[in-house]
Amino acid sequence: MKAITLLTDFGLKDPYVGVMKGVMLSINPDVCIIDITHEVEPQDVTEGCFLITESFPFFGKGSIHVCVVDPTVGSDRRAIVLEHDGHFFVGPDNGLFSFAIDKRSRVYRIENKRYMLKDVSDTFHGRDIFAPVAAHLSLGLDPSALGKKVDDPVLLPDLHPTIKGHTMTGKVVRLDRFGNVLSNISIDSFNRFVKGRSFHVRLHDMRFETVSRSYFEDPYTCVVGSSGKLEFGLFNGNLAQEKDIKKGDEITVTLLNR
Amino acid sequence: MKAITLLTDFGLKDPYVGVMKGVMLSINPDVCIIDITHEVEPQDVTEGCFLITESFPFFGKGSIHVCVVDPTVGSDRRAIVLEHDGHFFVGPDNGLFSFAIDKRSRVYRIENKRYMLKDVSDTFHGRDIFAPVAAHLSLGLDPSALGKKVDDPVLLPDLHPTIKGHTMTGKVVRLDRFGNVLSNISIDSFNRFVKGRSFHVRLHDMRFETVSRSYFEDPYTCVVGSSGKLEFGLFNGNLAQEKDIKKGDEITVTLLNR
Amino acid sequence: MKAITLLTDFGLKDPYVGVMKGVMLSINPDVCIIDITHEVEPQDVTEGCFLITESFPFFGKGSIHVCVVDPTVGSDRRAIVLEHDGHFFVGPDNGLFSFAIDKRSRVYRIENKRYMLKDVSDTFHGRDIFAPVAAHLSLGLDPSALGKKVDDPVLLPDLHPTIKGHTMTGKVVRLDRFGNVLSNISIDSFNRFVKGRSFHVRLHDMRFETVSRSYFEDPYTCVVGSSGKLEFGLFNGNLAQEKDIKKGDEITVTLLNR
Repeated sequence: MKAITLLTDFGLKDPYVGVMKGVMLSINPDVCIIDITHEVEPQDVTEGCFLITESFPFFGKGSIHVCVVDPTVGSDRRAIVLEHDGHFFVGPDNGLFSFAIDKRSRVYRIENKRYMLKDVSDTFHGRDIFAPVAAHLSLGLDPSALGKKVDDPVLLPDLHPTIKGHTMTGKVVRLDRFGNVLSNISIDSFNRFVKGRSFHVRLHDMRFETVSRSYFEDPYTCVVGSSGKLEFGLFNGNLAQEKDIKKGDEITVTLLNR
Repeated sequence: MKAITLLTDFGLKDPYVGVMKGVMLSINPDVCIIDITHEVEPQDVTEGCFLITESFPFFGKGSIHVCVVDPTVGSDRRAIVLEHDGHFFVGPDNGLFSFAIDKRSRVYRIENKRYMLKDVSDTFHGRDIFAPVAAHLSLGLDPSALGKKVDDPVLLPDLHPTIKGHTMTGKVVRLDRFGNVLSNISIDSFNRFVKGRSFHVRLHDMRFETVSRSYFEDPYTCVVGSSGKLEFGLFNGNLAQEKDIKKGDEITVTLLNR
Repeated sequence: MKAITLLTDFGLKDPYVGVMKGVMLSINPDVCIIDITHEVEPQDVTEGCFLITESFPFFGKGSIHVCVVDPTVGSDRRAIVLEHDGHFFVGPDNGLFSFAIDKRSRVYRIENKRYMLKDVSDTFHGRDIFAPVAAHLSLGLDPSALGKKVDDPVLLPDLHPTIKGHTMTGKVVRLDRFGNVLSNISIDSFNRFVKGRSFHVRLHDMRFETVSRSYFEDPYTCVVGSSGKLEFGLFNGNLAQEKDIKKGDEITVTLLNR
């Protein structure tokens, strides 16, 4: 059975998420629907992009990921479905799926009204377009039935760290509930850059010369986070609050000449 | 398969919602349970009433909607089950289901202890009465097996806008996560009142002479909301916060003589 | 069908809970997963312990309860699975399951890597160990396949009220969304202590000479809570806020000599 996952900035106070599930169950009563999160910061497409990228690989192939962080709903931004590595992604074409787009991805515009609700509002495409399309995909619909192929899906800029001389520069992309600070520097790119040489990692006034395995080792730690990225934490404390760290803050990895 | 939806003011911090689901699954292990919201403002029956009204039509016929906003649990307020347009509603008889009550509705008191938990507390009917009753309904129980017919279910006052001369007066009934402001003025009643004539809509110091299709058109907009009601928003901002709008605030639609 | 319940301090802002569900569904696509709560106060093992104790009996036998409040993840604390009264509990060995441990409980260490994700991080055992183990249990795996028997599981101290002369002393263990105050004094232990004699219950400056059935009877009430413990509330108000009550605050039951 194919699962549908949901990732939105709708929150759980309003009935919007429940209503989307109602629409999906009306079309496929057997579908399994899993919430990833609905607490993306309102209209922060970049945060949504990192969250779905970090989460989708833990779901089985064939899963359908509905992501709605959609500040320009009602404009002429396109609605798309994307197939990538056996997973399907459904949502607005605003960069949310930047990491899932490569040469092997198939991207289609959602245009076929047959797979939408009868009355499509201009304010709630999650309910009127994305939910019914996802439910039809879970019944086996091929994405190509939805509309024309898209060759130029929107990509977000500045997602990856940059390297200049002896310094790799990344940034803070997410603060979690515990105050842990997640970066956009993957362990793989870190290792390829450092190649076993001495380094320091800087974030605000903190400086780390090692990357730890766990938050348990020191009060302040730079660890290999569970998402495979460099992550920063304070044991039994909230690092983001204590150091007033914000999304977008700079993180540098510098090679030491010694 | 019939779905059970849940709408409460229990929040998600406490285990109350999870426990209700445990009770339902113990009775019907195959039932599909969907959360609409658990963040109704504590004990705000009117807000719960608007939320369930806006949400239930997106679920399939045969769905069972358990709604628990129940400030007088433990008093002699009745517990009811209501059948309306192929949907079932289960909860306290305090007006929560006002919009689902008309001449065709069948309303029954929940009295038959056979369909409750063995020990019924005076503080948690959601778990002890409403959850097991809903699970039994999902197994095909007819509402009439639960108790006597109710001819005078409680109705909330002041749910609908009023018309006096050239002015229709409604109110704010809900503020959503984005700060959008939802009214009790349906587009249908608005159109019947305005009949294509010129008008202005007022809320606080704002005045609108058109109803837009989307939040994208202007900074401040009065739109046809996704729930079919007049709704107000601020593009890329939080209107409710910026204008200090509260539930209950007056909204007027005035016909212009020109 | 066996249900898996989840109780964590992960919150719902981050994708951690969704990712755990992805892992479980990848192993057992038919499993039913129910959230009890993810809003345990971060790293408060005692609160988690009371919450799971209060909740699990409402789920059917055979249910699998995954509890992750795990401040020392990455240290040498053990991971365990525990069978108690037909229920299974999966999580860290840090006292979370204190109430489910007695002479009849079977406790096993989780050591067999076959039932974990391939790469086990040091920061997210919920995803890498507990989720896959629970999914395998839901497919019928016997806990003894996971590792060695544990004879000395960790137990939390000070969970139970104490009796000294004419006074039973308990404490506040949880504040719910409504501001109701939950104690660790069960009605059974209360009744065994009081044996029908006169008493007063004190909490801060409040004094109660009766235990009510419902919050509806008085403004301030001491009631038999829905979890079978003494509970305190303020009708149409938030008692915890009004009286500035905190977890750990003392509650006394004193027998009156008259």
